[in-house]
Amino acid sequence: MRDFERPTRDSAMMHNTNTPALQSWVAKIESRLKINPHDAEAWLALARDAGNRPVDQMRTFWERSVTHFPTHPYFWQLYIGREIQAGHHEEVEKLFSRCLHKIPSVGLNLQHVRYVTQTNPPHFSVQNREKIREAYDQAVARVGFDVEAGPLYHDYITFLESCEAVGPYAEQQRSAKMREVWQKAVAVPLAGIEHMWKDYCQFEATHFPAVHEKVTKDRSYEYINAKKQGKALVPLLQSLRRDKLPSRPRTQEEERHQIGNWRKWIDFERANPLMIDDANKLMRRIAYAYENCLMCCPYRIDIWLETAAHYRDAADKAKARSDQVAERDIIDAAAYCMERGIVLYPDRALFYLIIADLEEYRKSSPDRVKRIFDRCLGKVTENPTLAYIHYMLWCRRAETIKEARAVFARARAEPNVTQEIYVAAALMEYFTAAVQTCSTCSSKDKRAAEVALRIFELACKKFVPNAAFYLTYVNFLVMQNDQINAKILVEKALAAESLTVQEKLIIAGKSLEFDTLYGDYESIQKTERSRAELMAQLQLQPSTSPVGSRIISRWNYLGLTPINEADLKNIDYVESRDPVSLTPRTSFDLFKDSLVSKTADTKKPLALPDLNAMIPFKPRRNNRGFLAVPGGDYAFPEAIEQLKRLVPPPESFAGPFPDVDQVIRLLLEENAKSTVDLQKAAEGIDAGIRTIAQIVEMADEAETERMRLEIDPERRNERDIYRLRQAKKLKVEGAE
Amino acid sequence: MRDFERPTRDSAMMHNTNTPALQSWVAKIESRLKINPHDAEAWLALARDAGNRPVDQMRTFWERSVTHFPTHPYFWQLYIGREIQAGHHEEVEKLFSRCLHKIPSVGLNLQHVRYVTQTNPPHFSVQNREKIREAYDQAVARVGFDVEAGPLYHDYITFLESCEAVGPYAEQQRSAKMREVWQKAVAVPLAGIEHMWKDYCQFEATHFPAVHEKVTKDRSYEYINAKKQGKALVPLLQSLRRDKLPSRPRTQEEERHQIGNWRKWIDFERANPLMIDDANKLMRRIAYAYENCLMCCPYRIDIWLETAAHYRDAADKAKARSDQVAERDIIDAAAYCMERGIVLYPDRALFYLIIADLEEYRKSSPDRVKRIFDRCLGKVTENPTLAYIHYMLWCRRAETIKEARAVFARARAEPNVTQEIYVAAALMEYFTAAVQTCSTCSSKDKRAAEVALRIFELACKKFVPNAAFYLTYVNFLVMQNDQINAKILVEKALAAESLTVQEKLIIAGKSLEFDTLYGDYESIQKTERSRAELMAQLQLQPSTSPVGSRIISRWNYLGLTPINEADLKNIDYVESRDPVSLTPRTSFDLFKDSLVSKTADTKKPLALPDLNAMIPFKPRRNNRGFLAVPGGDYAFPEAIEQLKRLVPPPESFAGPFPDVDQVIRLLLEENAKSTVDLQKAAEGIDAGIRTIAQIVEMADEAETERMRLEIDPERRNERDIYRLRQAKKLKVEGAE
Repeated sequence: MRDFERPTRDSAMMHNTNTPALQSWVAKIESRLKINPHDAEAWLALARDAGNRPVDQMRTFWERSVTHFPTHPYFWQLYIGREIQAGHHEEVEKLFSRCLHKIPSVGLNLQHVRYVTQTNPPHFSVQNREKIREAYDQAVARVGFDVEAGPLYHDYITFLESCEAVGPYAEQQRSAKMREVWQKAVAVPLAGIEHMWKDYCQFEATHFPAVHEKVTKDRSYEYINAKKQGKALVPLLQSLRRDKLPSRPRTQEEERHQIGNWRKWIDFERANPLMIDDANKLMRRIAYAYENCLMCCPYRIDIWLETAAHYRDAADKAKARSDQVAERDIIDAAAYCMERGIVLYPDRALFYLIIADLEEYRKSSPDRVKRIFDRCLGKVTENPTLAYIHYMLWCRRAETIKEARAVFARARAEPNVTQEIYVAAALMEYFTAAVQTCSTCSSKDKRAAEVALRIFELACKKFVPNAAFYLTYVNFLVMQNDQINAKILVEKALAAESLTVQEKLIIAGKSLEFDTLYGDYESIQKTERSRAELMAQLQLQPSTSPVGSRIISRWNYLGLTPINEADLKNIDYVESRDPVSLTPRTSFDLFKDSLVSKTADTKKPLALPDLNAMIPFKPRRNNRGFLAVPGGDYAFPEAIEQLKRLVPPPESFAGPFPDVDQVIRLLLEENAKSTVDLQKAAEGIDAGIRTIAQIVEMADEAETERMRLEIDPERRNERDIYRLRQAKKLKVEGAE
Repeated sequence: MRDFERPTRDSAMMHNTNTPALQSWVAKIESRLKINPHDAEAWLALARDAGNRPVDQMRTFWERSVTHFPTHPYFWQLYIGREIQAGHHEEVEKLFSRCLHKIPSVGLNLQHVRYVTQTNPPHFSVQNREKIREAYDQAVARVGFDVEAGPLYHDYITFLESCEAVGPYAEQQRSAKMREVWQKAVAVPLAGIEHMWKDYCQFEATHFPAVHEKVTKDRSYEYINAKKQGKALVPLLQSLRRDKLPSRPRTQEEERHQIGNWRKWIDFERANPLMIDDANKLMRRIAYAYENCLMCCPYRIDIWLETAAHYRDAADKAKARSDQVAERDIIDAAAYCMERGIVLYPDRALFYLIIADLEEYRKSSPDRVKRIFDRCLGKVTENPTLAYIHYMLWCRRAETIKEARAVFARARAEPNVTQEIYVAAALMEYFTAAVQTCSTCSSKDKRAAEVALRIFELACKKFVPNAAFYLTYVNFLVMQNDQINAKILVEKALAAESLTVQEKLIIAGKSLEFDTLYGDYESIQKTERSRAELMAQLQLQPSTSPVGSRIISRWNYLGLTPINEADLKNIDYVESRDPVSLTPRTSFDLFKDSLVSKTADTKKPLALPDLNAMIPFKPRRNNRGFLAVPGGDYAFPEAIEQLKRLVPPPESFAGPFPDVDQVIRLLLEENAKSTVDLQKAAEGIDAGIRTIAQIVEMADEAETERMRLEIDPERRNERDIYRLRQAKKLKVEGAE
């Protein structure tokens, strides 16, 4: 933390960025950021420094920070706050337009309405008031679902109340608007919704005394449900720590846990506990959870994809309801979401591909889709092959094979394109020709196959083919009945230096499969010899016989084996034609296998540890809150966890110190004895024990008192200090 | 062990098997054998009992025992011994003919030559002597390689010596024969070869005094090498415990270890340390090791296969040398080896298939191969599909497609045949037609494809297709450009109840692959919807997003992915089109992954345990001989292991008890001080230490003496008690 102390607090220096000490301090922090660009502490330190300087000088930093944290409101709010302070209205407006729609933050929206209120004083003109009202409405539409949106509703209502209404009509209108906002608010599971509801009831009683009982009763169902759901939602959201700056994922348990919490919220919304009938509203509530998750975890690509999938599903549903407006909006939202993903991941093809897919979904003009693919190809420069492949295949679908060929030609000119597109192009040519021709005339088939073969050959000349290429090409040749070339290709693959032994074994296995089906004995022999050489090179565990495994696999066909499963296990068989089996196994796997076979053996019922409960050793820096027992640190059981939270810290207890054994004995006997008995029993024994008996009696009294309180609602608030103060405050306000 | 005590030892009852007590005892042991037919103790107990009864009554038991342990000599020897005792010569001859060729046991061969000697007294006739000589020659040919073959050679020479030779010519012939046997013996790494060599030298000196020095010198190179190799071989073979009865494999570490020891012997022979030039002889030495392994571990199928592969390789080599006789013999040996495998595993197709393959290798008449397949089909009744498949494919290779079709027709009539043969038959029809026609006219191709399709359809009607069937069929249809039926088939597969979610996902993945290559947008959408449903059903770890994984896999092509590897790891990506990735991962795998990503993270260099050295907890009943340290029991280092064997047991030491620290100090300083210094040093200290000094001195003297002995060959035998006695004996014999 020492790094973040500014070297001097001299106010004269504040506006001077050229001080050497300050410069070196900034440089130090910048170097930290260079090592880890996600160092939140460093960013916050720089922001604290920037907050003390004129915003005009620090715009580079502020822009950098909001570019680095585009999804999170923290730096946006600071930046905008500085601009507001400096009175740069134009910049403020621009900044708000850049972030307000993207970030589902109550704070940011509050900042906006306050800014609008400030720049358009409501008492000056009706237009100003209209502007403010609009800002509030938009804010409610954006973040009104938030459990923390209470202040927003509160401010809105206060604003509406403060607007002067001339004449009964205007007043009625104002009341209607207020009621609308009130009713919106009390249907949302907000934190502190109870006060909101109480205030609302009071509002109804004041403004609509005639119908207030009926109206509040009607609303109370929604309110009660919202309150109930709020009870579940508030702790959930508190655990999410939305104020924390996002950081890169590091595949750690902690992060997995956090994402699990986010998913809990999303699942909560998906279950529709508020029983929302309006599909669009429900969709937006779920989307709000997703968008919040993206705000805090923008580096989780799966959340981006799930959000897009959520919009996509919703669009499907809207389509099914023939709600075209909603469908369009939702697809727009999905595309916009992916655009925001591109901001963070400009060099990944994924997001562009999904946008193109969305455009294809809504049958946009080909030019539009092409522009997306071109944008993608402009950014994804390291290996644009996949983008080209999908561009080509899209062209085939949406336009004609000619356009697809043009894309392939373009791809071939690129230096970074790899062999996979040749495979795709060859198969595309083959299949497309086949689909277009009818099945009776096969001359076109032949020509298509020839085109495909030429493309394969081209790739062979241009690249060092990889295993997937060889496998696809061999398979293609075999299915084209070109067995001779297939054999030649297999031999080339087996001689290739670029392939691993495992890959070669899989290719040789394919070759063996075809050999047994149509080859002669000599070719089977030849393949077997190659396989024997490859198996000898394979690093197998010592108990596996490469020769035995190879000979057995020679006779396997599909799922059949010439011996049985137990035999295979006994010889630690490795299937040399199967990629799964060829992945090297750890000693742990082996050990588990040996256990399985041991427990299957009826002879020796040996005492074995339960491996399922086995936790690998994991060093933990801080294992407080964990129960350290030999074998690892475990979380306390739920019940003890609860108790730990209830019990006061040990420092707060100064005596008396009872005899623990006796306490436990008494507790165990508690049911049998009444307090009278206890007192009687205490009579005879020493002072310490007597105290315990008294404590027990006191506790009993307290329990009875608590129960009495619960039964009597009138007296329930007697001890609620918060409510007492609230009531006092209301009284004071009422008096004013 | 109490079970094995016979209830009564009353000799009157010996020959009465109907005693109730004895009957119940036998019944008890038989019930043990019913639970575990490999219970060696029970077999031995029964054999002890049977050994006390007349062999005529116990033949059922003896036959049962040699049927159960056909590869091991133990029961054969007992059985034959009983028959010899009873004087049943016919039975003895039959028994010898049944086992002598199969079992590489010195004991059994000795038993045979002794029996021949006994039944053909050598002093009666030349024919008898000739018979005995022949028996000895055969025995030497069979087990002369064995390290324990010493007694056999010894007996042979004694026998030859005992034969009376009339006239100098006969005597010369006898000497030549003896010399031949001697020379054979001293070239083999036998246990106790040194005595053999000495006796041989003496023999040469006695019988060929003129040339003996030259001859023994010529032979000494071979002898020295054999002696050296014997030093390595004898402990190896002792560790193999060839006298132990074989038991079923149980995939235990102990057994793995034992097989490892066997492989050590085999590898030892393969390395040709005796520098044998004769390829056949070397082949037989290696084969001898394999056959020994099969004798003791007959339930290791991999050893059977390796033995067959060894013969097969040798046959290839013999072929390369144009040694046709050897080639034929070796292939015979291979086939014979597999026949012996069939005895143990009559219901596994593997051994029959290998025999058929051997016949195909040596181009036997088709009838011969057919007989093998028919034998196989007669035995492998549970699921003869694989046997039929290979029968059919062999027919296609060796005969014509018509015979292959006949086999397929025969298979279809069988009730136990499964769908795999339909796949093989369909592909065979397709490929064979294609190979036979030239590539220009494709009408035959079409017809072949139609035949194949009919076979596929037939299977679909008759069976509930499994995943492999669906995949092959879909692939076939797609490559036949029958996209419509391919789609229908995919849908059928996805609706099938018999497939698991994982299997369906792989089929849907294949479908997606073809859809992106040639389908329209709608069919891609449909496949994606199916895949989404399947992914939702999949039991994934909580941190994996099924939606995210599915969407990414939608865009993958061959090895390309639209995001990068690190991104995939961060979201715990599961490739839904790949069988490897769909296998559920254990928490241990996850933990390892998280460690890898953690260590890749430069930020926190946390102290991590070395997982490679992590040994999972394993309860061990008896961990004597292991070093128990926290974390597990480890084997002692090799050096300490050696020392442990040398040191006498602690009970044998009664004092004096030296100060260990001083001893060590003295030992460390040993180089620096002469014995005189030590004695001087000892002068001053107490009696205990003085003793040590004396011990050190004595040890030094002993060492000097030993070295002197080694340098002086004359004195080397001074302390060799065995040789001293031997010499004494020879003297006594000489005196007689």
